[in-house]
Amino acid sequence: MAERLVVIGGVAAGMSAASRARRLNPKIEIMVFEKSGFVSYGSCGLPYFVSDVIKAPENLVVYDAKFFKEKRNIDVYLHHEVLKIFPAKRSVLVKDLERDKEFEIGYDKLVIATGARAVKPNIKGVDLKGIFTIRFLEDGIAIKNFIKENSPKRALIVGAGYIGMEMAEALVSLGIDVTVVEMMPNILGSMDDEINEIVEGELQRNGVKLLKSTSVVEFVGDGFVKGAILNNGVSLDVDLVIVGAGIKPNSEIARDAGIEMGRTGAIAVNQRMETNILGIFAAGDCAEAFHLVLGRPVYVPLGTTANKQGKVAGENAVGGNAVFKGIVGTAVFKVFDLEVARTGISEKQAREEGIDYVSTVIEHGSRAHYYPGGSKIRVKLIAERKTGRLLGAEMVGRDGVAKRIDVFATALHARMSIDELTQLDLSYAPPFAPVWDPILIAANDIEKKLKS
Amino acid sequence: MAERLVVIGGVAAGMSAASRARRLNPKIEIMVFEKSGFVSYGSCGLPYFVSDVIKAPENLVVYDAKFFKEKRNIDVYLHHEVLKIFPAKRSVLVKDLERDKEFEIGYDKLVIATGARAVKPNIKGVDLKGIFTIRFLEDGIAIKNFIKENSPKRALIVGAGYIGMEMAEALVSLGIDVTVVEMMPNILGSMDDEINEIVEGELQRNGVKLLKSTSVVEFVGDGFVKGAILNNGVSLDVDLVIVGAGIKPNSEIARDAGIEMGRTGAIAVNQRMETNILGIFAAGDCAEAFHLVLGRPVYVPLGTTANKQGKVAGENAVGGNAVFKGIVGTAVFKVFDLEVARTGISEKQAREEGIDYVSTVIEHGSRAHYYPGGSKIRVKLIAERKTGRLLGAEMVGRDGVAKRIDVFATALHARMSIDELTQLDLSYAPPFAPVWDPILIAANDIEKKLKS
Repeated sequence: MAERLVVIGGVAAGMSAASRARRLNPKIEIMVFEKSGFVSYGSCGLPYFVSDVIKAPENLVVYDAKFFKEKRNIDVYLHHEVLKIFPAKRSVLVKDLERDKEFEIGYDKLVIATGARAVKPNIKGVDLKGIFTIRFLEDGIAIKNFIKENSPKRALIVGAGYIGMEMAEALVSLGIDVTVVEMMPNILGSMDDEINEIVEGELQRNGVKLLKSTSVVEFVGDGFVKGAILNNGVSLDVDLVIVGAGIKPNSEIARDAGIEMGRTGAIAVNQRMETNILGIFAAGDCAEAFHLVLGRPVYVPLGTTANKQGKVAGENAVGGNAVFKGIVGTAVFKVFDLEVARTGISEKQAREEGIDYVSTVIEHGSRAHYYPGGSKIRVKLIAERKTGRLLGAEMVGRDGVAKRIDVFATALHARMSIDELTQLDLSYAPPFAPVWDPILIAANDIEKKLKS
Repeated sequence: MAERLVVIGGVAAGMSAASRARRLNPKIEIMVFEKSGFVSYGSCGLPYFVSDVIKAPENLVVYDAKFFKEKRNIDVYLHHEVLKIFPAKRSVLVKDLERDKEFEIGYDKLVIATGARAVKPNIKGVDLKGIFTIRFLEDGIAIKNFIKENSPKRALIVGAGYIGMEMAEALVSLGIDVTVVEMMPNILGSMDDEINEIVEGELQRNGVKLLKSTSVVEFVGDGFVKGAILNNGVSLDVDLVIVGAGIKPNSEIARDAGIEMGRTGAIAVNQRMETNILGIFAAGDCAEAFHLVLGRPVYVPLGTTANKQGKVAGENAVGGNAVFKGIVGTAVFKVFDLEVARTGISEKQAREEGIDYVSTVIEHGSRAHYYPGGSKIRVKLIAERKTGRLLGAEMVGRDGVAKRIDVFATALHARMSIDELTQLDLSYAPPFAPVWDPILIAANDIEKKLKS
């Protein structure tokens, strides 16, 4: 009998693992259990689905279950939740949610790709209609339907992270009045103030009200949400709430099975994406990733990492020898006309880590000064004082930010020093960059500080 | 008496050298002799000046002579040509072109930044009115004036290199019918066919006629150019000709002074931008640059390199210890709606070098498949078979090419292997990239070939 690979979860990491395993081993039986009704979709596209830039939910789906069966001989079971893992027996307990039936099935190799869930804070009234988290395709569909049916006028977004920013843009584009509340004194987590102030200006320019150091203590309504009471006593009239207050790894079934968790609360994995139990792998938003700048495992769940980890887990599950070395913390998002990006660690993080660092902030044009359509890019760099090694970069601007950050990401992978960065032979033509790219301007500037 | 630094040439390398020297040494006397009437201008912007995207020639000038005098205490002599260098006497013979007077002036340190000139091939009739090369700001002004005064209808561009492509776009945008003749059987020099075929399609779509393996044997006219006779006997009616048949380093005065030339015919320099004569530096389009992938000096004159080399020469001319490690051969240009970029070596070059290589060509979206406005990017990668080291990349597409090539450029500087490239933590958000960036798709694809 052929070996059987069971994959728990069928979004980015799960389907990457299943597909990689199939490519390397045409014979193994592959079963994927997915709790929701969709596999292999781009959850990062949800704000654009809500704003109707993307019309149909199917557009977000890369491949459907039928494709995986027909083209890759992978059996995808939708609406099937794995409730328990029995490592000693090498089996899992699965619940068919549509038929409300449970069954146990054996595996030879197991990939846990259970993903993460949005945190719904324990606030009075949080279960009122019109209050949503946004994580799964079903969430996006529910929000879009709610807007269509109820034409909300005033939205509250809880949490000024990436998803909060993207949803603010989406809702404003639908003509909805948007207020964002953020518990912390600053937006965007560990992003530094010099970047955040530009983002805040962009929110303001687009009519988004931002309340920092503010939290919601109660939602009020009559079935449907009608208002929110803030910690400062203020009441807001709102008829739509998006809670973007962070996400949590779905690691409970792994923990219950005796699989080791990392200090972050996500599943601990080695470079081969192996857990502590032989034959059980984990990948994606339920697992940690090794941060190459910080030198330790972190929990930074992103689709790019999920895909890479899934691929490695799938390869190793069929006897391969792939490694995933780690991440450098790259991220980018769009908010209105701004591109905001980061990689490595911020000044805030460097300070928290007790690193002796040097930082700089510069602004320089995205194109030749005489070529139309360019705009200023602000670049912040952080370098280790003693070694001159690049530690991180943050960028914000109206064009040319998203892929420029990748130069710094690549430099972090290569552990480049600032001195090496100043020498980079970067592309130049008037429509695309000035002769001294903002990357080089920033590198030259921080080099002066390192030498002084 | 203060030391004197003399700089020959006041465009990119020369003014970078002068500015850097001044920043590090407030006391030294700095004299810059520039043959033309402009300093510190972006010659890469000339096609956009001709097409009137950029209105006035002054817009191309970064800083003028007055700025350098007032802000940096640098004496710029416009319309002053240096005719001779006397290394033994540490002096130069300068000709004041406006007053038609020659004088000799001493230096303590000398930076040669004489740039390059366009090759005007020795073809009968090449001096007819309406035939131009395009290299200096004066060339751009002359072409723009000619077009204004003579309203040419049919242009011939000789040479299908970057400048030929950019000028084709510029002239088409002015409603001029454009034919490009290229002596070689392919366009764009050492760029590979898989990129060139897309560029050729773009030329065709925009009504540009391209004649490969074709050269001009004679220009005919009555004072003004009226036609061109090709090597295949065909006659073309043309009333404007742009010759983009390559450029040559202005290295003659250096050679006459006993300064060593490299095998490329440009001035040989070390990492400190020193020539073989103590106290004499060279930088920019008159000098060689060390190619980090090929491992030898090459002649690839570009503004980015000129600026970096000039800075290093200026620093060392005042007693500093800067090095310019070299280039990786990065270049990008726009032609109509295409962005075309390269870095490192092409497959053609790898073959010529006798390198045992592997290559791949992939196409992948510039944005998430569901996000509007994206387009396919074609990526070609070349890697060394034995070591898996990246050797070069070429890219073409309608958006997101120019700065993506910089990831490969950075990887070349770091001598990254393809295996490392596949792991890069690149930025992802639907408006900017797919979850598997084309860079990673290409890296994964060539990795398969390396392993097989």
